[in-house]
Amino acid sequence: MTDFFERSLIVHEQLRGKIGVVGKMPVANRDDLSLAYTPGVARPCEVIANDQSKARELTIKRNSVAVVTDGSAVLGLGNIGPHAAIPVMEGKALLFKEFANIDAWPLCLDTQDVDEIVATVRRIAPVFGGVNLEDISAPRCFAVEQQLQDIGIPVFHDDQHGTAIVLLAALLNAAKVLGRDITQMKVVINGAGAAGTAIARLLRCVGHSPNVCIPVEDVIVCDTKGAIHSGRKDLVDYKRELLKYTNRTNRSGSLQEMLVGADVFIGVSKGNIISADDVSKMAKDSIVLAMANPVPEIMPDEARRGGAAVVGTGRSDFPNQINNVLAFPGIFRGALDACATSITEEMKLAAAHALADATVDLSLERVLPDPLDRSVAPRIAAAVAEAAKVE
Amino acid sequence: MTDFFERSLIVHEQLRGKIGVVGKMPVANRDDLSLAYTPGVARPCEVIANDQSKARELTIKRNSVAVVTDGSAVLGLGNIGPHAAIPVMEGKALLFKEFANIDAWPLCLDTQDVDEIVATVRRIAPVFGGVNLEDISAPRCFAVEQQLQDIGIPVFHDDQHGTAIVLLAALLNAAKVLGRDITQMKVVINGAGAAGTAIARLLRCVGHSPNVCIPVEDVIVCDTKGAIHSGRKDLVDYKRELLKYTNRTNRSGSLQEMLVGADVFIGVSKGNIISADDVSKMAKDSIVLAMANPVPEIMPDEARRGGAAVVGTGRSDFPNQINNVLAFPGIFRGALDACATSITEEMKLAAAHALADATVDLSLERVLPDPLDRSVAPRIAAAVAEAAKVE
Repeated sequence: MTDFFERSLIVHEQLRGKIGVVGKMPVANRDDLSLAYTPGVARPCEVIANDQSKARELTIKRNSVAVVTDGSAVLGLGNIGPHAAIPVMEGKALLFKEFANIDAWPLCLDTQDVDEIVATVRRIAPVFGGVNLEDISAPRCFAVEQQLQDIGIPVFHDDQHGTAIVLLAALLNAAKVLGRDITQMKVVINGAGAAGTAIARLLRCVGHSPNVCIPVEDVIVCDTKGAIHSGRKDLVDYKRELLKYTNRTNRSGSLQEMLVGADVFIGVSKGNIISADDVSKMAKDSIVLAMANPVPEIMPDEARRGGAAVVGTGRSDFPNQINNVLAFPGIFRGALDACATSITEEMKLAAAHALADATVDLSLERVLPDPLDRSVAPRIAAAVAEAAKVE
Repeated sequence: MTDFFERSLIVHEQLRGKIGVVGKMPVANRDDLSLAYTPGVARPCEVIANDQSKARELTIKRNSVAVVTDGSAVLGLGNIGPHAAIPVMEGKALLFKEFANIDAWPLCLDTQDVDEIVATVRRIAPVFGGVNLEDISAPRCFAVEQQLQDIGIPVFHDDQHGTAIVLLAALLNAAKVLGRDITQMKVVINGAGAAGTAIARLLRCVGHSPNVCIPVEDVIVCDTKGAIHSGRKDLVDYKRELLKYTNRTNRSGSLQEMLVGADVFIGVSKGNIISADDVSKMAKDSIVLAMANPVPEIMPDEARRGGAAVVGTGRSDFPNQINNVLAFPGIFRGALDACATSITEEMKLAAAHALADATVDLSLERVLPDPLDRSVAPRIAAAVAEAAKVE
């Protein structure tokens, strides 16, 4: 693993940036120069000045996404700041291009103040067709995203919704393989941060098709103090909000206690939180999706030893890799193609169902497509664009 | 000309953006994905977290420039706002790539407040190695640029300094062709905005080599009310500042009166301001650089009819085109190569001299290189990088 990390460093040293800008027209003669710049550029400028919506027909706005972070919650590294976050945001931009032909540009902001982040994104919005928020720590990420919903282009915090969408797709397919009804399963989510909250919200409306809204009835979210229930005095607002649609029987207790009899464990917390013994107390043929990186909440062999039928992690070296790259390129492609002004719950659900449906050779060890499968993003894009039009 | 503008609109409609993002490494297999994104990306992140300066060695920061505007003074179109400015900023980014292999990304800001522009640029700075300010109206452009000089990367308002540098190069070569001493020439600048002010400042130190600082002694700047002199009660601060190094004999009068006996007319104002008759009252073999676009302060044939020996305009359909593209790509290339934190007066002068020296077959009708000459930017870059190191 040391060799791998050193190799990654060398790759980054050699590339000095994993993305670049490329011109889409030649500048070989005076005519080219006059068309691309002055005086020819005046005409499209005038057209947009008269009708702002024409920016999508005449400029990069049609296909460009800002990848915005404040560097406060980067990978497993934590609050490393905007400069140290650049390699991640470049990587994200590279994947946007590779999987969905989107022109994404990283913006790593030198502030961690919610109001300043919001003001900055508002001001840089004109040139972009969408904003992917990334690696902003909870609970600030909720406020940032929520306050930016009116800026006229989709603003989507991938750590919340991208993760939730891929996870729901995995869960839909796991239920399918096991012949179970997803709405009747008992789900325990460990981790009440960005991802855990978004997953709980998305489970409010899983249905069996994008247009039928049926919730998963029994969802309990745990944080480091165990189940989130109405009797807890320590709950911040966004955790209290969760009680509107989780833990309907208001159970209290530890994560381990909640797992007894549960069908599904979803881990978006930290490594080595549960044991094979814990899994053995879950319902028969349980589903364990342990997403902590690089060390999952429970290693796959342990989970199986405890009786889990479907095991997924965030890692590429085990089956059922739950990787955001399966979702975000197609979601933004669909939103851009539809000139959407936001990414609605309907669009997220459409993405999850399209992703689930894109899985070939469905099995216990294959509840999601391969992250490198290039056919996935276009399928998600089509579903998302369709859902956007329904609005 | 209508045909030309319609053709430009069609080109813009077809391209939907003149630039795009391109990946610099393949994402063909799981190893690529792991190196470019998680988990491999963690290592360069950690290195930068420990030493922020490593961002220039490991990321796009080394080669990226933000092209920032507020859309307040776009071409000859005026205050058309950030969306309508996108085609120009894209064109600029295209030229950065074509002439200097710089990855420039447009940021068209949805604010025209100086403090908000400054705050926004500060916050987006981490991912960039330089900032090209563009088409921001005077006097706000002065405050914006000045307040951003401490952000650790060069911030350069091209409408001021790019124009001034190309103009000085033209003037150096015009003097050379005519066998005159530039420091002894009487210069009248018409226009006291961004460009006029920057030209007057650069003429404080023309010398005969970058390291010898000799001013042009006799420079007068005119605005719409004639010569700027100490007796005027209507002068805003930045115009009053000009009196420290212009109009040393404190002459008052109209532009036409100032032109009598002058050697050089520099127009950065608006079309059809002076006549052949006005030029005929200038000194023998005068130099007329009439930069208003698309209609110059005087048409070249009129200026020559009045006796001008060297005539330059901003237009590509006449000899001696004074085009910013001759300067900004090389200036930023040199600044990035030298990891410069600002673009100093010395670097600007070095650029002007390098540009003048890059002109082949010097003549009355050829005081600047062809704007498409690809050898110019590397020569300017080398001179600018050298001047940056002298600091």
